[in-house]
Amino acid sequence: MQENEKRTELNDLGEFGLISHLTDKIKPNNSSTKKGIGDDAAILNYGDRDIVVTTDMLVEGIHFDMIFTPLKHLGYKSIVVNLSDIYAMNAQPRQVTVSIAISSKYSVEAIKEIYEGMELACNYYGVDLVGGDTTSSLSGLVISVTAIGEIEENKAVYRSGAKDGDLIVVSGDLGGAYIGLMLLQREKEVWKTSPTIQPDLDGNDYILSRQLKPEARKDIIELLIKMELTPSSMIDVSDGIASEVKHLCKASGTGCNLYEEKLPIDPQTYQTARDFNLDPTVCALNGGEDYELLFTVPQADYDKIKGNPHLTVIGHMTNIESGTNFISTGGSVMPLTAQGWDSFGKTNEES
Amino acid sequence: MQENEKRTELNDLGEFGLISHLTDKIKPNNSSTKKGIGDDAAILNYGDRDIVVTTDMLVEGIHFDMIFTPLKHLGYKSIVVNLSDIYAMNAQPRQVTVSIAISSKYSVEAIKEIYEGMELACNYYGVDLVGGDTTSSLSGLVISVTAIGEIEENKAVYRSGAKDGDLIVVSGDLGGAYIGLMLLQREKEVWKTSPTIQPDLDGNDYILSRQLKPEARKDIIELLIKMELTPSSMIDVSDGIASEVKHLCKASGTGCNLYEEKLPIDPQTYQTARDFNLDPTVCALNGGEDYELLFTVPQADYDKIKGNPHLTVIGHMTNIESGTNFISTGGSVMPLTAQGWDSFGKTNEES
Repeated sequence: MQENEKRTELNDLGEFGLISHLTDKIKPNNSSTKKGIGDDAAILNYGDRDIVVTTDMLVEGIHFDMIFTPLKHLGYKSIVVNLSDIYAMNAQPRQVTVSIAISSKYSVEAIKEIYEGMELACNYYGVDLVGGDTTSSLSGLVISVTAIGEIEENKAVYRSGAKDGDLIVVSGDLGGAYIGLMLLQREKEVWKTSPTIQPDLDGNDYILSRQLKPEARKDIIELLIKMELTPSSMIDVSDGIASEVKHLCKASGTGCNLYEEKLPIDPQTYQTARDFNLDPTVCALNGGEDYELLFTVPQADYDKIKGNPHLTVIGHMTNIESGTNFISTGGSVMPLTAQGWDSFGKTNEES
Repeated sequence: MQENEKRTELNDLGEFGLISHLTDKIKPNNSSTKKGIGDDAAILNYGDRDIVVTTDMLVEGIHFDMIFTPLKHLGYKSIVVNLSDIYAMNAQPRQVTVSIAISSKYSVEAIKEIYEGMELACNYYGVDLVGGDTTSSLSGLVISVTAIGEIEENKAVYRSGAKDGDLIVVSGDLGGAYIGLMLLQREKEVWKTSPTIQPDLDGNDYILSRQLKPEARKDIIELLIKMELTPSSMIDVSDGIASEVKHLCKASGTGCNLYEEKLPIDPQTYQTARDFNLDPTVCALNGGEDYELLFTVPQADYDKIKGNPHLTVIGHMTNIESGTNFISTGGSVMPLTAQGWDSFGKTNEES
């Protein structure tokens, strides 16, 4: 296959590099396509409704490790990560389709457990599973989910609407899913050498659930409606907050100041990071899979979010010339670097 | 994993059995879901439009063999098989999303070729590629496509509308894609023992293109509009006509008579089947991947389709008590058995 031609390895580009390499020339032609590639989800317009569509693929050995991932949780999470992208457009998810490739090492009962987890998530988030495909695979499990949602015409919130001076706000707390993964991986190593030792996971329920059974922030979207607050830009936190803030800046044409002391970190995340000799700030900035919502609001809206326990202002947008900056607790200013998780093993540092 | 529990092997159920086992209790709850699992595509209703959604997954080693599948053709086909499901609802495809998992044995250039094939298909069928996901895989290539289409409210054609007496009609011809695959597999075996011998594929362009670069029957949907003909039921031919006719009968609550002498078989398909000592009728009945449209129309519409070179009447629906019958050229009546292709290695024989 192309033995004498130019060969670029996948990890030379990284995931984001590959996607833009493959899709930068793709332009929509249909009048029903309002927004194509480049945000958390695409926006289609049919009749008087805007329809939001997103898709995500989970691959065994890349996105999950069957050694420590309960099947029902895996099914649940595969739905949640897609719904998170729908909420990140300020939309309501309504339907999902599920395609699944399975090797013969899985029994029907195992697959049924995955589906039970999916149904739990569908029921919890009020979403219908409307179709899919089931096929065999020569190795391992692949789950591909497409989620469809709706929103009032022209009300979707893109990554690109932030303005100089807007406040940067994040829901919940950061770094927990990553630290949960560290813990599971440590216990897996112990298990590999001494299979009879019981895993030491006591007292770590919060960070384990952040990794194994994340939730999408449906409640935050409802809260924003109640507060009569429309973000100027929004994205969900799947790759680490540093990477996501930079996505908002790039799409909006702004710079930013992000403050270390403002980052919301749960005490369990903080303590476990310390136990692993990891810097909790780095875990919060670059650990992925928190599925929180990151958004910007005009400064005039500060009073609406002030004191809300679910929302934290972590910085503000600046003009593009100021660059994307991280201000440490000690007051040092440094460029914000995004080393979010990349399935191709390349850091997500972007231009 | 569940070592002491009941274990059912995937191939005990087969693909259709597994899908119904997993999804038989799933019922839609949202008012925007008009039709969930169980047809070629789901139907959603937003505003005053019906939206059609379908998804399909192609797995290396199961659905395609990289030894003889050109990458651009693979990309093209991965889009076409999904659009075929949209046309099978009598709808027009508008958007696709693409998720792809790739192992490091593929170069960026290789993936780009797949995308070029996808873009060719998108342009030809007037569809926008609006989103997707790109990730790494530990082994082989997996492509998952979701297609979205639209149709005037309440105009979708389901599998379930056929009535006793309706004519069974198929577009194009049957069995070509299967015979094309047989040819490619024979040349692969020759190549494995003698890599220097050039493949002997001359004069087989038609059946090779049926396998490697199938088209969805957009033209037939346009023809039906021009003829002012609305099928009473419709399905696309992906698993073999016998299996598809039985799907229509099951969904519609009818029986059928299908006539061997009526099956449209291209001379190249017929001759190559003979060369392989295969029965061309069996290839037409059970060979998959023809991506033709199979539909039923009331007998009163016979004059509209009579003599049309793209359409062949291959039988008619009967009452359910008569069963699903196949009438051989010699006049023998036998039960129609569906041994369509199943990725789990089980025949698709259904109750």
